[in-house]
Amino acid sequence: MDFLLSGDFDPAERERWRAALTAATGARPWCDGEAFDPAAIEVALVANPPPGRLAGLPALRLVHSLWAGVDRLLADPTLPAGVPLLRMVDPAMSAAMAETALWAVLALHRGFFAYARRQRERRWQPHAQRRADEVRVTVLGLGQMGHAAARRLVAQGYRVAGWTLRAPPPADDGIGRHAGAAALAPLLGASDIVVNLLPLTPATRGLIDSRFLAALPPGAGLVNLARGAHVVEADLLAALDAGRLRDAVLDVFAAEPLPADHPFWRDPRVTVLPHVAALTDERSAATVVAASLAAWRAGTPAGALTGWVDRQRGY
Amino acid sequence: MDFLLSGDFDPAERERWRAALTAATGARPWCDGEAFDPAAIEVALVANPPPGRLAGLPALRLVHSLWAGVDRLLADPTLPAGVPLLRMVDPAMSAAMAETALWAVLALHRGFFAYARRQRERRWQPHAQRRADEVRVTVLGLGQMGHAAARRLVAQGYRVAGWTLRAPPPADDGIGRHAGAAALAPLLGASDIVVNLLPLTPATRGLIDSRFLAALPPGAGLVNLARGAHVVEADLLAALDAGRLRDAVLDVFAAEPLPADHPFWRDPRVTVLPHVAALTDERSAATVVAASLAAWRAGTPAGALTGWVDRQRGY
Repeated sequence: MDFLLSGDFDPAERERWRAALTAATGARPWCDGEAFDPAAIEVALVANPPPGRLAGLPALRLVHSLWAGVDRLLADPTLPAGVPLLRMVDPAMSAAMAETALWAVLALHRGFFAYARRQRERRWQPHAQRRADEVRVTVLGLGQMGHAAARRLVAQGYRVAGWTLRAPPPADDGIGRHAGAAALAPLLGASDIVVNLLPLTPATRGLIDSRFLAALPPGAGLVNLARGAHVVEADLLAALDAGRLRDAVLDVFAAEPLPADHPFWRDPRVTVLPHVAALTDERSAATVVAASLAAWRAGTPAGALTGWVDRQRGY
Repeated sequence: MDFLLSGDFDPAERERWRAALTAATGARPWCDGEAFDPAAIEVALVANPPPGRLAGLPALRLVHSLWAGVDRLLADPTLPAGVPLLRMVDPAMSAAMAETALWAVLALHRGFFAYARRQRERRWQPHAQRRADEVRVTVLGLGQMGHAAARRLVAQGYRVAGWTLRAPPPADDGIGRHAGAAALAPLLGASDIVVNLLPLTPATRGLIDSRFLAALPPGAGLVNLARGAHVVEADLLAALDAGRLRDAVLDVFAAEPLPADHPFWRDPRVTVLPHVAALTDERSAATVVAASLAAWRAGTPAGALTGWVDRQRGY
């Protein structure tokens, strides 16, 4: 069984991935541009592969994304239709995402972005301090990452609600559950901070628009760690100007890298991160891949593997 | 029994304190400048009272600081020697301190201060990501606040050590214990991030000097949430210039408010907070005061009350 490792890696990064995958799976993957036989590739391990890359592999039986989000992969019309697709579900990646969410919520709650603005003006000006249990945080999306973030926020004492498109199973974890489009506006109206960790699908694209933002109480904070296309950026800027939003922490954007002339770069109310809220760690990710491949070879149906993507649903 | 509430409050703050203390204790305290009888004051509730304020109260039997740090109070030579002194020990204040410590450690660990610097240059440049269990955090001081911070850091997966002057009782809480002057340099050499939450005493004044900073590995981060006088500020600036320290988060300073011409304000490696890491919350603090006063009136010896200050030790 031959593997292909295909993605937009730089050379050092590609070799780190290859070494980790070889160590974890016992087989050395081929890489783009090498002299492999396309007809021998049964498994493709991909991270933003060039569009069309997977179409020329007649023996392909499984695609495993090394990233958690597969919206870009699913948008490639040459992705072979009958081949099962897995996305990365790695506890180490969820931990990194939860760290970023917690850092952003702590900073918004305690006003540390405001203090950074005052430092630039050399202004010594304390502001009032709220207790965590007075701060209402809503997490959009309760997948592996959303749930990991929400649990850490509960552990810090925040009042945490989770919103999902479909009703999730109930759980006794301190996270209030809200589901469906009709529940969203009332929930936003009772949210001081919103953290977006939804998958990008046709149902969630452009969700954070002027209507969404108008439902928030004045002075709310927004943290987008999911996909840039969840946000209508012009509406976000208008909400900042109107004071509806006080601060935004954005890790993802409509265009990445964020263009040099984009107003987010120089807006003191916007914190720009270069899509780093949770980088895939090749050490742990390779063990996740190896475990899935072992289960698949042992006969587990693809639909029962961790991270199996329902193409209709989009994640 | 008459109470005096004395401190450097603004008028609104003073009345919030008076209302909270009246509600919690059932007795309305007098304030500076009001027509009370000095000979009737038995209890003083103080927050940076004017030097000498407590000397003219012949019936004074107990002083309760509304702040956690009493170094400034103890430095007042007119503080009556025989009167027991309590400092504020409030779980809500420890929680606020632990939030600030956690925010700073997350930001240093994940490089969010570096991303903020790159945003000012409109530079999209990801850097490598470490797991929390690869980051060694040392907390100086394991009093109520240090311990609260250390426990939250353990819960996030960091490798946490605590350092104290005297050997603390052992505990099974995931925090490595190190004690005494000789243990400090080796521990600093194995610390990526140091959080200072020591009390200010003659033994800890100036502790963070060139020798201390030279013991750190290159690129370490320092978080000072205790007292400005713990740090030799010129040595700290030199350590930043030498690359020994990559970032410093400072809430307290030798002179407060930080003078407008102080180099910390404009140093991109220094995060300046205006002494807000943990503000006393008058709502919870008033209940702490009421509980101590009730226990004291019921006959508990002052030395057995929560927050009793050993004047020799200095906290």
